[in-house]
Amino acid sequence: MRLRNKPWARDFMAEHPDVLLAEPEKLNNGWHTLFGNDHPIHIEVGTGMGQFIIGMALANPNVNYIGIEHFDNVIVSALEKAIEAGKPSNLRLFRANGVDLLKIFHKGEIDRVYLNFSDPWPKTRHEKRRLTHESFLKLYETVLVPGGEIHFKTDNRHLFEYSLVSMSAYGMRLKAVSLDLHAEMPEDNIMTEYEEKFSAKGQPIYRLESQYMNV
Amino acid sequence: MRLRNKPWARDFMAEHPDVLLAEPEKLNNGWHTLFGNDHPIHIEVGTGMGQFIIGMALANPNVNYIGIEHFDNVIVSALEKAIEAGKPSNLRLFRANGVDLLKIFHKGEIDRVYLNFSDPWPKTRHEKRRLTHESFLKLYETVLVPGGEIHFKTDNRHLFEYSLVSMSAYGMRLKAVSLDLHAEMPEDNIMTEYEEKFSAKGQPIYRLESQYMNV
Ligand SMILES: C[S@@+](CC[C@H](N)C(=O)[O-])C[C@H]1O[C@@H](n2cnc3c(N)ncnc32)[C@H](O)[C@@H]1O
Ligand SMILES: C[S@@+](CC[C@H](N)C(=O)[O-])C[C@H]1O[C@@H](n2cnc3c(N)ncnc32)[C@H](O)[C@@H]1O
Repeated sequence: MRLRNKPWARDFMAEHPDVLLAEPEKLNNGWHTLFGNDHPIHIEVGTGMGQFIIGMALANPNVNYIGIEHFDNVIVSALEKAIEAGKPSNLRLFRANGVDLLKIFHKGEIDRVYLNFSDPWPKTRHEKRRLTHESFLKLYETVLVPGGEIHFKTDNRHLFEYSLVSMSAYGMRLKAVSLDLHAEMPEDNIMTEYEEKFSAKGQPIYRLESQYMNV
Repeated sequence: MRLRNKPWARDFMAEHPDVLLAEPEKLNNGWHTLFGNDHPIHIEVGTGMGQFIIGMALANPNVNYIGIEHFDNVIVSALEKAIEAGKPSNLRLFRANGVDLLKIFHKGEIDRVYLNFSDPWPKTRHEKRRLTHESFLKLYETVLVPGGEIHFKTDNRHLFEYSLVSMSAYGMRLKAVSLDLHAEMPEDNIMTEYEEKFSAKGQPIYRLESQYMNV
């Protein structure tokens, strides 16, 4: 998702360091110190314009949320929304690439990873870029607590099929699967921008929860 | 699938013991002796009117196939088809209930289990009747070789969602998943009766291959 170029993005981001952190470097004292509590930390990789992560932060004040997005032009939209929402104290945005997770988090610091409508990278030669590729599953495992979970939604059938097999091959366990999330919409579902767009077209939304077996 | 009552079914079945075996009792010398070769043995539980298992037997002469179906009135239709097909020597039909698999097979005698459009048993109180319930997964594991596989097709979304989670919870690994089999129809796909009916209505056909990790 590349929006039009926004030359003001960097300056705008620099004005809101209380919400948006821009350096992919581990916080020395850890994220729990930053949030000032011991609540679980859930992150979203590829957070886009932030509707999901901000909605989650408002709905669940006892969980800390971090939205990670690598494009300036996209994350500024999430920042604008976060400001509108009154800068929830349990929310941070972080401009970084998911490949740098180990620079951002200590081992076992995170309780859950959300992936929503991740770029499908349909070509086999781009398989390594898919956020459910083995190499990413390894990164998530490292920053997650033992037995940590991934919650994944997408409209993309091929990416979902791939992810089921990739997670299973990694030794993860499926805890829940829906192949048409909106047919029996869970009360607590918070829609992402892409989810609104694709479900409005009548496309089924796929969802899974999977868990690492490293407990 | 209950067809109309066929009072002649038992007599007709008794006339063709070379194809249809009716007693759920283990063959003392085993199925490889019965088939007279060491080819792998693939079974289908809930074989219905037999289109799939007979099609598979004709397409793959180096695999032995056994179709298991518990209703007389249904399995006679499979028997009629098998006679029409010239009684392939690598095919047997067996009138039995899947719960009796241990009476029918020796441990580790089977190489693959097919489940096609198994009855969904949607009510939670009937969960144990679903052919992908833990108790059936245990039975299949016992009669299968170590690392044996289940190949499962269905149009039923809830049964498929359930089966993904049930197999994963059992510790099985997903080897392949398709959430719309007919969108990229594999060349070697043999359609079942139900598959023809439901795919003609435009419903997606779900398919998975899973493997026991007991190697
Ligand atoms: C298709 S959009 C979906 C956005 C949002 N999650 C939603 O559901 O509406 C995918 C987003 O992930 C971001 N993204 C893709 N790969 C990423 C990575 N490796 N690290 C960080 N962000 C990434 C893209 O920039 C894009 O904004
Ligand atoms: C919905 S039909 C599908 C038939 C066929 N496999 C197809 O795809 O067209 C399910 C069949 O499985 C049989 N069946 C269900 N439970 C069974 C069990 N426990 N043991 C043997 N057969 C069973 C039913 O009698 C029925 O014929």
